[in-house]
Amino acid sequence: MDAVNHQFRLAARPQGMVKREDFDYVEEPVSELADGQVLVRIAYISLDPAMRGWMAEGRSYVPPVQIGEVMRAGTVGEVVESRSRKLAVGDRVSGWLGVQQYAVCNENEVFKVDTDAAPLPTYLGALGMPGVTAYFGLLDIGAPKEGETVVVSGAAGAVGSVVGQIAKLKGCRVVGIAGGPEKCKWIVDELGFDAAIDYKSEDVNAALREHCPEGVDVYFDNVGGEILDAVLARLALKARVAICGAISQYNNLDAVKGPSNYMSLLVNRARMEGFVVIDYMGRAPEAVAEMASWIAEGKLVAREEVVEGFENFPDALQRLFRGENVGKLVLKVGS
Amino acid sequence: MDAVNHQFRLAARPQGMVKREDFDYVEEPVSELADGQVLVRIAYISLDPAMRGWMAEGRSYVPPVQIGEVMRAGTVGEVVESRSRKLAVGDRVSGWLGVQQYAVCNENEVFKVDTDAAPLPTYLGALGMPGVTAYFGLLDIGAPKEGETVVVSGAAGAVGSVVGQIAKLKGCRVVGIAGGPEKCKWIVDELGFDAAIDYKSEDVNAALREHCPEGVDVYFDNVGGEILDAVLARLALKARVAICGAISQYNNLDAVKGPSNYMSLLVNRARMEGFVVIDYMGRAPEAVAEMASWIAEGKLVAREEVVEGFENFPDALQRLFRGENVGKLVLKVGS
Repeated sequence: MDAVNHQFRLAARPQGMVKREDFDYVEEPVSELADGQVLVRIAYISLDPAMRGWMAEGRSYVPPVQIGEVMRAGTVGEVVESRSRKLAVGDRVSGWLGVQQYAVCNENEVFKVDTDAAPLPTYLGALGMPGVTAYFGLLDIGAPKEGETVVVSGAAGAVGSVVGQIAKLKGCRVVGIAGGPEKCKWIVDELGFDAAIDYKSEDVNAALREHCPEGVDVYFDNVGGEILDAVLARLALKARVAICGAISQYNNLDAVKGPSNYMSLLVNRARMEGFVVIDYMGRAPEAVAEMASWIAEGKLVAREEVVEGFENFPDALQRLFRGENVGKLVLKVGS
Repeated sequence: MDAVNHQFRLAARPQGMVKREDFDYVEEPVSELADGQVLVRIAYISLDPAMRGWMAEGRSYVPPVQIGEVMRAGTVGEVVESRSRKLAVGDRVSGWLGVQQYAVCNENEVFKVDTDAAPLPTYLGALGMPGVTAYFGLLDIGAPKEGETVVVSGAAGAVGSVVGQIAKLKGCRVVGIAGGPEKCKWIVDELGFDAAIDYKSEDVNAALREHCPEGVDVYFDNVGGEILDAVLARLALKARVAICGAISQYNNLDAVKGPSNYMSLLVNRARMEGFVVIDYMGRAPEAVAEMASWIAEGKLVAREEVVEGFENFPDALQRLFRGENVGKLVLKVGS
């Protein structure tokens, strides 16, 4: 294999919003395979809010990406060379192969995906890490009961859009918070949410009062900041707040805004709990199998927004943090 | 009964720190008893951080005290007249009789306490609402396991001092955070805490690193503010944070300081949960019985700090909010 590999390597720890100069665009030859290894041609790269945290220094749930390392990312692609007995040329696989065009990896670093059940990019979205995050974060941490009111922020994003749909399947009243009329229309008209709140044009506090007259039983938070505070102020008794992310805060130059209304947890005997999807990896197959059957039955809509061109990775990442995508944002590597 | 009753009635909703002018000092005759009622001469009045919240307008876990109403307070005293078959003259009772010298109440509004088991003021402290708060907040919400590290703030206060002692009885390593050398010495030397952090003279972050090398499994928070943030930064995996109060924030003129480090809940898959002691009133007798036996066996130290003179109520309340008391602060009404 004489192919040339292109990569984005971390060049600097970002200050505020990520920018192109935080990455080095590098070209290098594809290395030789050892026994048990495969060469994967990466087809799609996942763009995730969590990437911003991985670029920062400091203790978190995974080690930070080191300066000079290939940027960490979820990927799907095709095996194009194999010295493995488990994986054959032509197999479609998913794994943490990073922001590059080709990856040499051990056979256990990737797993096969079934492109008859869903298109390849869906394995980075509803049937990938975001879907599994939504599934366990909602069902295990939020633990909604039929008839309860579930609110989700980042509702038109990869995780939020799945959270809301699962909550509907479980018989809940579902209110999504998203930015802009297109996203709000989509989650109500296409995904079946009961209501949408456009935080860019509406008074979120007033809208929550209107759409959640009996309070919020479960809040699935992807954004933090002012919206978290608004929902805290509307909690029902014994509410559960699942902390999945805080995208509004990731590119802050200032300190994180803590939730001023956290004493609502006391008044309402409520709980706020964080979780990380990697703790659920052992149970991911059950979640993926159930969500795949929902997709097949037309009960779960999976949508990806595809940015073309490997070299556009930094711009695509900015697009994510500006909240411009609807559904799961992926970068298409090849043609 | 021709006795004259003195009362403190709420005159104004406080701005910032409570002050004498927020109350009216009122004199009125003691009213006649109806059937089933008793007249209680109040001996001790409880001074509680929660009082600041009851004086404020707005939705909380109990309705606010109305302007013109007798200030709400827990009390203990003696029945001096009775038209009840349940309660006789001479009985010692406890109940929510307010900041006054005498109260006419229905027989079901108070319950008898046993002054052979403990002195009367202890029924406002370790064997009263603060003790029950400590017991269920720690054991139900914090759920410490033997060998775990428990941190409590307001550690020399009515609730915190009991929390730490119960955690020791359950086999935990216990670190208390308190203000000033006297309190810190008391909780270590007399109550048996493993360590104390004086937040007025020490770097709390550094001290937590030193005293909790494996992180904090349970944090019982009475104070909020900077100390809550410092402990959040030290959470262990699967930690539980019990939100009991936020005394550092109650007299703020500015907005409450939300915990900037709340994303530590995500990184550590941890939980922050609020609770209110009134939810546990049905189970209070079991807690009081167990704590009374611990006191009898010398395993639990109950300490009250007594302010003399009914007319000093507003000053005593300020003393509480300035953190000047060690143990449970009570106001002694009579001689």
